[in-house]
Amino acid sequence: MSNSRIEIFDSTLRDGAQGEDISFSLEDKIKVAIALDEIGVSYIEAGNPGSNPKDMEFFKRMKNVNLKNSKLAAFGATRKANIRVEDDNNIRSLLEAETDVVVIFGKTWDFQVKDILKTSLEENIRMIVDSIKYLKSKNKEVIFDAEHFFDGYKENKKYSLETITSAKEAGADVIVLCDTNGGTLSSEIKNISKSVVDSLGGRIGIHCHNDIGMAVSNSIIAVEEGICHIQGTFIGIGERCGNANLSVIIPTLQLKMGYEAIPKEKLADLTKTARFVSEISNINLLDNMPYIGASAFAHKGGMHIDAVGKASKSYEHIKPELIGNNRRFLVSEVSGKSTILKEIQKIFPGITRDSKEVEKITNRLKDLEYEGYKFEGAEGTVELLIRKTIGKYKPFFKLNHFKTIGEQPWNNKNFTSTALINITVDGKNKMTASEGDGPVNALDKALREALESFYPQLKEVRLVDYKVRVLDSESATGAKVRVLIESTDGVENWSTVGVSRDVVEASWIALVDSLEYKLIKDIEKTVRMYF
Amino acid sequence: MSNSRIEIFDSTLRDGAQGEDISFSLEDKIKVAIALDEIGVSYIEAGNPGSNPKDMEFFKRMKNVNLKNSKLAAFGATRKANIRVEDDNNIRSLLEAETDVVVIFGKTWDFQVKDILKTSLEENIRMIVDSIKYLKSKNKEVIFDAEHFFDGYKENKKYSLETITSAKEAGADVIVLCDTNGGTLSSEIKNISKSVVDSLGGRIGIHCHNDIGMAVSNSIIAVEEGICHIQGTFIGIGERCGNANLSVIIPTLQLKMGYEAIPKEKLADLTKTARFVSEISNINLLDNMPYIGASAFAHKGGMHIDAVGKASKSYEHIKPELIGNNRRFLVSEVSGKSTILKEIQKIFPGITRDSKEVEKITNRLKDLEYEGYKFEGAEGTVELLIRKTIGKYKPFFKLNHFKTIGEQPWNNKNFTSTALINITVDGKNKMTASEGDGPVNALDKALREALESFYPQLKEVRLVDYKVRVLDSESATGAKVRVLIESTDGVENWSTVGVSRDVVEASWIALVDSLEYKLIKDIEKTVRMYF
Repeated sequence: MSNSRIEIFDSTLRDGAQGEDISFSLEDKIKVAIALDEIGVSYIEAGNPGSNPKDMEFFKRMKNVNLKNSKLAAFGATRKANIRVEDDNNIRSLLEAETDVVVIFGKTWDFQVKDILKTSLEENIRMIVDSIKYLKSKNKEVIFDAEHFFDGYKENKKYSLETITSAKEAGADVIVLCDTNGGTLSSEIKNISKSVVDSLGGRIGIHCHNDIGMAVSNSIIAVEEGICHIQGTFIGIGERCGNANLSVIIPTLQLKMGYEAIPKEKLADLTKTARFVSEISNINLLDNMPYIGASAFAHKGGMHIDAVGKASKSYEHIKPELIGNNRRFLVSEVSGKSTILKEIQKIFPGITRDSKEVEKITNRLKDLEYEGYKFEGAEGTVELLIRKTIGKYKPFFKLNHFKTIGEQPWNNKNFTSTALINITVDGKNKMTASEGDGPVNALDKALREALESFYPQLKEVRLVDYKVRVLDSESATGAKVRVLIESTDGVENWSTVGVSRDVVEASWIALVDSLEYKLIKDIEKTVRMYF
Repeated sequence: MSNSRIEIFDSTLRDGAQGEDISFSLEDKIKVAIALDEIGVSYIEAGNPGSNPKDMEFFKRMKNVNLKNSKLAAFGATRKANIRVEDDNNIRSLLEAETDVVVIFGKTWDFQVKDILKTSLEENIRMIVDSIKYLKSKNKEVIFDAEHFFDGYKENKKYSLETITSAKEAGADVIVLCDTNGGTLSSEIKNISKSVVDSLGGRIGIHCHNDIGMAVSNSIIAVEEGICHIQGTFIGIGERCGNANLSVIIPTLQLKMGYEAIPKEKLADLTKTARFVSEISNINLLDNMPYIGASAFAHKGGMHIDAVGKASKSYEHIKPELIGNNRRFLVSEVSGKSTILKEIQKIFPGITRDSKEVEKITNRLKDLEYEGYKFEGAEGTVELLIRKTIGKYKPFFKLNHFKTIGEQPWNNKNFTSTALINITVDGKNKMTASEGDGPVNALDKALREALESFYPQLKEVRLVDYKVRVLDSESATGAKVRVLIESTDGVENWSTVGVSRDVVEASWIALVDSLEYKLIKDIEKTVRMYF
């Protein structure tokens, strides 16, 4: 067990964005960067400003964001062959990004230099050296990504070592050995890393891809041979089979090997952060993902459940709470009771673990989860469900009828959606109609207009986020969908959720909860003010 | 590189069935067993006949199935403490399964013996020895699963070694070292496996779980230390984070280490078999799964695509056809002209890089990407766009009008969606109406019904996947959405994409492309047949 620090270098926003189906908006990128800084990774590699205008815009925007723990890095290639480094557009873009850290990748495999770059082995070394020296002269911290290093080492050891020795002598602060194609065995990574650490010295890093399912173990085995810097992506996304998964590597380093990778007190935020990043990336986090997956500490076999009840270490390699995950017994009813109790006591502090209400609410939530609901981050709906189950709830309006109509006329460009709604509040009837972008938007507008005439405080409320997830996508257009809505009144934000086979109905459920939650909060405030 | 054989022991139907959301019917189990035999694994562990009547029924049914390559194995515990082995019900069930091979698991971690089994260390050894001797006396091939061996070895090396030495002396044919909790590092697996191989000799196996993401590398590293038998599940399913993934281990053994794991000529069936097993298991095979995933050889970055075009080894660790997978070039904003050119040349081989059509199509794709389109994996839409831009496209029908209606009556539970559509084909008019789960499903049904009367071949087409992504979710219910549809005609699968502020319109665009793509493919086939 060691106590030294391993640098965690996150490339979710750069190499991760190369994954199939991954596409970050500018706002997404900023949110992810803030979350990574929050949990305390050492570096955030966030884009290639020379190849992508959206990335350059991101670096500009980040100048107004104050990172507490992480350094921001821009990524790009060495200068092109046969030009001066000062004249290289890509190098210029890297400087324009104005980050303290720059990552430069260069070729170390002779085959790549000759057959892909189509330049000489000597010129390739000059490209590496010139680029690093130039960036050092601009006071950058320079990380050199030795692309295809392991493939290069196996085919031409002498040349691959010459490239990284030159990079080091040119002033690179970290030399990162990249298994770019992801096909190198752990035993090879071990031997080659050891030989580089012994001969080169200084800060050496590793960058693994998962093409043979070894990116995690390859990263860890390199640390055992003296490497101090690990590149990966937070939930493992990336080109082809993805990059080394940092949410798996970090707890192994910290809990099993005694290294410090992120601040100790942040480890319990691991699961939450991974789920947040996956939400923003709009990919389903695998239930069976090591450490942070929903099934990672789920027990199904009766014998296993008995044994874990006696001593958790009998079928759990660590305690799930260390990384903010939790144990689940898939056939039993005791799971999550204490979490649910905590939610109930927030609203009704008098209710204890043994109250029959706890059982009733637990069962209701479980039934809804079975139907496809997920209550993580949908605290508005959870509070309303608790109130409804306990009987402390009175509807704010009665829906008599609504109707949504979508029409595609002759001209392809004029698709319109309309909604009509009819509600009753305190015996008074109100009907409204509204056009909108799609049936949900039209219905949202019509409902608000109808309710605002009774509850003017709803004018403050607007939706800030709307997400749709198709649950069983194999059922195609008849599949169940889950809609998550985030609302704000300018002071507080809250989220609500709805599930149905129909996107309009699922949205309606979440929408009604969202507005009722606001009305309940306002009544509570009034009560607190006067009593 | 070695040429010896590694035994592949598949436990999809036993340990795999412990995974969350996994449930095999009897028919499912038989189908999976036949597929595993077909590809040639050495052993198929198919159930615990003592704990599960469905498993016993399976073994009975399998007596009529003639396996060509694999041996069937039944799984169960050693005899209970303080009874005679002949009187143990579980052991009796194992014999009733009438398999040639029996797997017996026993405790090797002193903590488990004392705190979970609550018996003496000596009695535990007698339980192991009695059970193995008895099964050997019945002429079974006996595999001993040394449960929690690595945890046991680390806490009480002497006792753990005593359990497996006793098992071997009692006649066990294979001793399998199990990392039951899945938390052991590759370097520990390496050292402990080596020490057991050196001291015990004979056939030693390994059984890994993936709780720290190392199940694959741990299995491979054990082989490097002399282990000759690997237990896992074909696509990695299993309790918590799953078992060692055999579809990843097999090609690594065979292509990178020179072992024979399955018959050489079967390796090209790997991808097909994995996808079949996942289909039966009713789980989505991860796109980024090593070797067999749909993204495993998918390239997105323009520079990578150029390089793979020059030499595949520049960004591929093996040739995908070796394991029956294939290469894909994803069209995206970071990819360049050369990807688009390749797509164009698939349809119009005469068009070269300098043709003005390339520029025109590139610009069209870029404009659409700016609007929120993403063409990765939407090859149907890309082909139609190319045809439309080049002028080789004639619409198959004219839309006159469609209308979708959603209605929420008084009774909250009766939300219904209806669609009406009116189209013209060759001067003939057709109007249809349909109810469905939501406006999109209703419209999908109505459009198909209308088109099928003109194009009966559309009856073969069904949607297999439907995804919705909200693009700028901060615009809430008025946000843009992107809909991705995957369709099949039973022979080929294709995907299409649509973007709009309205989920109905976005779905409509993708739907129309999907059906037109099928019609174009059929015409092409006819043309090829006659000219």
